[in-house]
Order: sequence, then C-alpha cells, then structure tokens
Amino acid sequence: MMGRMTNSTPRPQTMAEKILSRRGTKTVYAGDLAVVEVDQVMVVDSIAQSFIQRMQQDLGATPKYPERVSIVIDHVAPASTVSVAQAQKEAREYAAQTGVRLFDVGRGICHQVLMEEGLARPGWIVLGSDSHSTTYGAVAAFGSGMGATDIALAAASGKTWLKVPDSVKVTFTGDLRPGVTAKDVALEMIRRLGADGATYQSIEMHAGDRFTRGERMTLANLCVEAGAKAGLVVPGGEILTAYGYDIPDWVYPDDGATYVQSIEIDLGTLNPRMSAPSEVDNVFDVAQLREDLRDVHVDQVFIGTCTNGRIEDLHAAADVLRGRRVAPGTRLLVIPASSQVMEDAMADGTLLTLQRAGAVLGTPGCGPCMGRHQGVLAPGEVCVSTSNRNFIGRMGDKDARIYLASPAVAAATAVMGRVALPEDVLNTKVSA
Amino acid sequence: MMGRMTNSTPRPQTMAEKILSRRGTKTVYAGDLAVVEVDQVMVVDSIAQSFIQRMQQDLGATPKYPERVSIVIDHVAPASTVSVAQAQKEAREYAAQTGVRLFDVGRGICHQVLMEEGLARPGWIVLGSDSHSTTYGAVAAFGSGMGATDIALAAASGKTWLKVPDSVKVTFTGDLRPGVTAKDVALEMIRRLGADGATYQSIEMHAGDRFTRGERMTLANLCVEAGAKAGLVVPGGEILTAYGYDIPDWVYPDDGATYVQSIEIDLGTLNPRMSAPSEVDNVFDVAQLREDLRDVHVDQVFIGTCTNGRIEDLHAAADVLRGRRVAPGTRLLVIPASSQVMEDAMADGTLLTLQRAGAVLGTPGCGPCMGRHQGVLAPGEVCVSTSNRNFIGRMGDKDARIYLASPAVAAATAVMGRVALPEDVLNTKVSA
Repeated sequence: MMGRMTNSTPRPQTMAEKILSRRGTKTVYAGDLAVVEVDQVMVVDSIAQSFIQRMQQDLGATPKYPERVSIVIDHVAPASTVSVAQAQKEAREYAAQTGVRLFDVGRGICHQVLMEEGLARPGWIVLGSDSHSTTYGAVAAFGSGMGATDIALAAASGKTWLKVPDSVKVTFTGDLRPGVTAKDVALEMIRRLGADGATYQSIEMHAGDRFTRGERMTLANLCVEAGAKAGLVVPGGEILTAYGYDIPDWVYPDDGATYVQSIEIDLGTLNPRMSAPSEVDNVFDVAQLREDLRDVHVDQVFIGTCTNGRIEDLHAAADVLRGRRVAPGTRLLVIPASSQVMEDAMADGTLLTLQRAGAVLGTPGCGPCMGRHQGVLAPGEVCVSTSNRNFIGRMGDKDARIYLASPAVAAATAVMGRVALPEDVLNTKVSA
Repeated sequence: MMGRMTNSTPRPQTMAEKILSRRGTKTVYAGDLAVVEVDQVMVVDSIAQSFIQRMQQDLGATPKYPERVSIVIDHVAPASTVSVAQAQKEAREYAAQTGVRLFDVGRGICHQVLMEEGLARPGWIVLGSDSHSTTYGAVAAFGSGMGATDIALAAASGKTWLKVPDSVKVTFTGDLRPGVTAKDVALEMIRRLGADGATYQSIEMHAGDRFTRGERMTLANLCVEAGAKAGLVVPGGEILTAYGYDIPDWVYPDDGATYVQSIEIDLGTLNPRMSAPSEVDNVFDVAQLREDLRDVHVDQVFIGTCTNGRIEDLHAAADVLRGRRVAPGTRLLVIPASSQVMEDAMADGTLLTLQRAGAVLGTPGCGPCMGRHQGVLAPGEVCVSTSNRNFIGRMGDKDARIYLASPAVAAATAVMGRVALPEDVLNTKVSA
C-alpha cells in the first residue's frame, strides 16, 4: 500500500508518522515537531472543572469546533460527594452553553462511549484527558492522553502540537490457544517492553486479521502502561470494515519504516497472565501465581473498565460463572463499560447468568478502578481486577494488593475465592 | 379472634400491646415498661463499627444468640472510601468470629433482605439500627429502630426494654383508583398525622385484605416519618399466608383496644401525592405541584430504597417508561432494593425496559437516599425520589430540593423532565 507522501518523501513512514503528517501541515518523522488538526477532544468529569477554568479564565476562549469536543461523566458517576456533583453540574452547564457533546452519568466509560458513538475513526487524532486515551489506536486513530491545559488549547484552537514519537514495532505471530485472551497478550507485551520501555513512543501493533475491535481496544489501552504516547493497531483483514469504518490507504505504515525497537510475540506460546503488585509489568503465568498464592483469600474481584468491560468480556466471565456461585467471602463486582454493553448483556441473558452466580452489578462507568467509589479496597485486602493499573493505593488503601488479569481468570478466581484458572472451575460441577 | 391474655386481662389490647406482652414476661399496656425477647437484631454497615465497639469494649460481650443478629452492608455499598471499606471489613471479620449473619455488598437494603430471608415474622420483635425498621410491621412484626448502644444491649442479652407505646388506629376504607398507590396512601397518612403526630406511638393500620406484602412494607416504612415507634399492619385475608407466614391468633388487636387517636382514610378519594421540601408531611396532590412547578426542570429522578425499590415498584415504573425515553438533561437512577429484586427484574424483562428508556441502574442497596454516594445532589438541583425523606441536605447539598412520590409518578417525571403524572406520559406516543 502506498503512503500519501511517498513520492515527495523517500523515507518510509510509521503509522504514527503517517497520521501526524496527514493531519498536519507537512511530512514529519520521529523527532519532528508537528502541528496537527485534532478530530476529537475528550474531557472526563474529574478534569472538567480544570478544563473549563483553562478555557474561560486562562484562554478566554470557546471551543473552535464544538462538535469535536466531548465531555464524559464516567470517573465518579453517579456523584459520590457534593463537590463531585457540583463539578458535574458545571460540566453539564458548560456543554449546554457551548454546544459540546455531553455523555452523562451511566452512559459509560469515555473510551468505550467515543468508540460506540463513532467519535474515533481510522486516521483521526483524538486527545483525551485520560491516560488510557491510547485506546483509540484500536481503530487506527492516533489517541493520546494529555493534561487539562493541553486539552483546553486543543479545544480552543482545533489543533495541538507534539513531538512526533519514535515507534516500536510489535508483531504478533501464531494463534492464541483456547482460554488465552487479548488481555494476556497485552500483559505479555507490557512485560516484554517494561513499564517505561516505550516512554513517549508509539507502539505499532501488527496483528494481521487477528482480534476483534474490543480486543484491539484492550491491546491499545494497555500501551500507556509501557509509557507509550500512542498504541496503534494496524488495521487488518475485514476486522474494522465489518464495523463500518472507512480505512484510508494512507493510514498504513510503509514497509521499511524506522522503528527504535521491534519485538515479536508468538501468540501460540502464551498462557493466561497476571500482573502482580505493584507494577503492570510485574507479569507472571497465572499457573505460577495460583501456586504462590494458594493460601491467599481474594476479597474482591472486579470485572469492568475501559480495558475489559465490553460484551465479549462479560461473555467470557459468564462462560465460567454459568451455574456456579461466587465463593463465600469474595465479592464479585461487574461493571459494564457502557449503557450499550449493559443493554446487550441484559438482552442476551449474560447479566442474569452473572447475577445468579452472585455478581454485584454496578452503574456503567469506571467503577472502583481509581479507588474513588463503588468498591474501594480496605487495608490488607486482595483484589483481582480486569483493569489496567495495580499501583500502590490505586483502588483504595496503600496496603491493598491488586492483581490484573483477564475476565475469564477473574471469574474463575471469584468462584474459587483465590487465584484460579478457568480450567480449575470448568472441572467443577454446575448446579441445575 | 381471641387474644391470648383475654381471660386473665379484661382490658382489650392493641397489636403492639399484644406482641410486647407475648414476647415479654407479663401482660403490658401502653405506658408500662416491658422487657421482651428480641427475635432479630439488625445492624447496618454505617453503625457496625459503633455496634462492635459497644459489644467488645463497653459490654465485653458476644451475641447471646448469633442466629438472631444480622449485619447488612447496604448504606454505602460498594464502599466509597477507604474508611468505609475498613468499617465493612471489620463487620465481615466480626461476623466470621461470632457467627452472626452477614449480608454483604450487593445483597440489598437491610429491611428488604431481612424480609426476603424470613428474618421478620408475624409476632416477632425486630430491632434495627436504621430508623426505617418500622418496615417489619408489614408482616405484623414489632419493628423499631434504635441506636448502637440499645442494639448492642439487645444482641448481648437477647432482650430489650422499652416503654409500651400508645397506639394510633388508622383505618383504610374504600378502594384505590387506578394510578394511585400505597406510596400515595402512606404520604397521605403522614400528612394527616403530621411529622411529629405519632411520636413514640405505634401506628396500627387496619387495611383488611388490601395491599401486597410489598405495599404493606411501604406503609409501615413511612410510619417513622410521623415519629412512630412502630407501624403495624393488621394481617388480613390471605395476604401474608400466601407468602408462607404463620400468623398466630394472638397477634391480632382486640376489639375495644385503647387508641390515643383514630383516623380513617377513604382510599377512593386519594389522588397521586407528593411531599415537597423539606418535610415528609408537606404533602400535595401531584396535579397541583405539576402546575406550581411547570417551569422547574427536574435534574434527577431516583427510583429505589426500602420504601419503593421492590419488583412491583419497578413494574410500575416500567409501565410508564416502556417505549419512551428519559427527558434530556434528566438523570433517572434505578436501584433495586435487593439482589433478588434485581434478578427478578432481569428475568422478566423489566430492567431491559428501563435500560432502553435511558435509566441508569445501580448496585442494590440504599443508593443516594442518604446522600453518601451514587447520586449525591449538587447545590440547586431538583430531585424527585421514591425514597422516604426530603429533609434539607438529605441527599447532598443543603440547597438541593427533594420531592417524594410513587414510582409511577417518578417515572412520568423522568420522561417529562418536570413533575408529571403517569397520565401525562401515557398519552404520548411510544416508539416501535
């Protein structure tokens, strides 16, 4: 496939270079400064007050293209305190005044909602006030997280400037074995790269026609856990066109593009993986942790977040939990990533399966991922979570321990009350 | 029907006098001090730490009958802060150590859970660390709320002492018109009695064979809003036996018992009712408030709580919302009263109807009723709620306004975005 700039620029380009050139004013390469159009600016509730202050007080500006700005109330939704409620009220008023989109309490997690709403598309540049904005790379959008000031400048001007990142090439080969999921692939990728192994780089994932959109979101989402500026999955086969996306030819990386590092992951060799406290790259085989932690009671299991709260994730959990019960003394929180996921899981019976197994359902949104409500951990508690960060204090007390895993492993752990593999559970009997 | 003490005690007894005599050591009348057996002590999460401290440090005691003590984690569940999580952890540990029952995060609201679990029965005495423990009167149990110290003494000794309350006789006549519900009846009753009109009295409700168990819970629940010590609904017809309750003959009040006041409510005259801020007895016809508030946008509608979070309440809401959408700018929170209600509403399609209408579902429990999480109100916000208290600051900021109504009225309000009657909505078109 030919890149747009091929004739005038002899040097082949990475996917990040392609997108930042196309949406900017000139052909750029890693290390260049680029000024680019921003196709969507996403602001979450917890940053909204700062964003509005920057816009109104510091910049004295209104959004240049209101249709390119979305505010999503997801981090603490519904509001848990008066000050949170006040901030959300101000966000609603700001949206009404300026005409920017507002996705209110219960619509879901920002990244999931923007994806469902078609507000991230191949070749777009999407800036979010949330670190996991790399998620948009699932659909070949250059997604990146920025702070309130940069976000406000982008909203006010319709543009942003950034240094074009170096790229890391990750090539997936082989095929996943049954029971191994995109989350396991992502954790292995972070382990291989290291928590700061791709700082300010673009992780360009060559997956061929593997992985659904949701699985690609899991992969792109976790790229920030290696420090990445962006995580781009190269469109392959009919994966994205089946969702209705138009994929411009110029979005694909050129053969011969320059990568600062390249790794290859043979999917066929992977087993279910788990990040142990307190870094995402502290990754082990679940089978090993199951032994190491066989006497450790798991207090809370959390299935949800922008990493693993989609319908396929709930299906994977339901397949393990169907006809079984959550272990006594273990709490299983299930929080769908969006109202659409909630509705789909209601309509196809998934939620009923989970509810009957003893799951505790929560309002679509971020849930306890940041430790701000809906399942904050007490000192000494142990949590297995499908989320993306297991840092000290992330979900509550600094003496709580968080293990990150796939929905299937999380569900098996909920049934056993300790770290477990799906096979441990699937060998047990099912109630009528 | 004959009371047990009839032969030896010439004075006829109220229902409260009957139960307190039977479960005590002697025949008692209003004004007497009674020492009685306590059949169930219920402790909620927000009081659990105080309760445990009283038991362990002040009394140096363990529960005399662990099977008569239940701890329910419902007020802030899942935990919203580390300190809440810590308190809940201590409650779990205490339950494990002492053998008392624990109903953990997501099981539901204390009163609903105890009812579902058969832990309140006709003729029982049930003390709860929650003011709405009058709810147990729905099944002819003397239910009453007490503080941590009294609750701990009851758990430690198996008994409590109290002054036998005077009784108020409330007689319901006639039949409700379509669209008028037990909530409307309860609000009218509170209006008639006044917010302090039955202070430390037992409200004895003579309903014949009217009202389901759930509706009786709504009636008994709100009795505390007139200051009542208990709210007893006289068993009638097959209402309770159909749920499998044994109803002892001695539980019925005697003809000629002494009441300090008697009121009669003709159900056939009632219209949908609503409590305006900031007292529960500030009750108006919805039709009037609809006019008075026609320019007032409703920010949040909350359907749930021990007052109105049962399956019949969700059915009533779904009947209004089916095929319709919540108004733009209005949030509709729906929080089932228990995991059983959640499961039933999933299984029969009610939740899907609500979800498709734009409702935001929350974890079974008390939700934002006390303003501690999951829908706290910002300054100036207006909320229509199916809950039981509209006091200043109850659900968040002191400058928020809360209106109390039935689930049907709440649902209609959600569709219209302002105070509305179901008929306002049922006349509008339904989407395919």
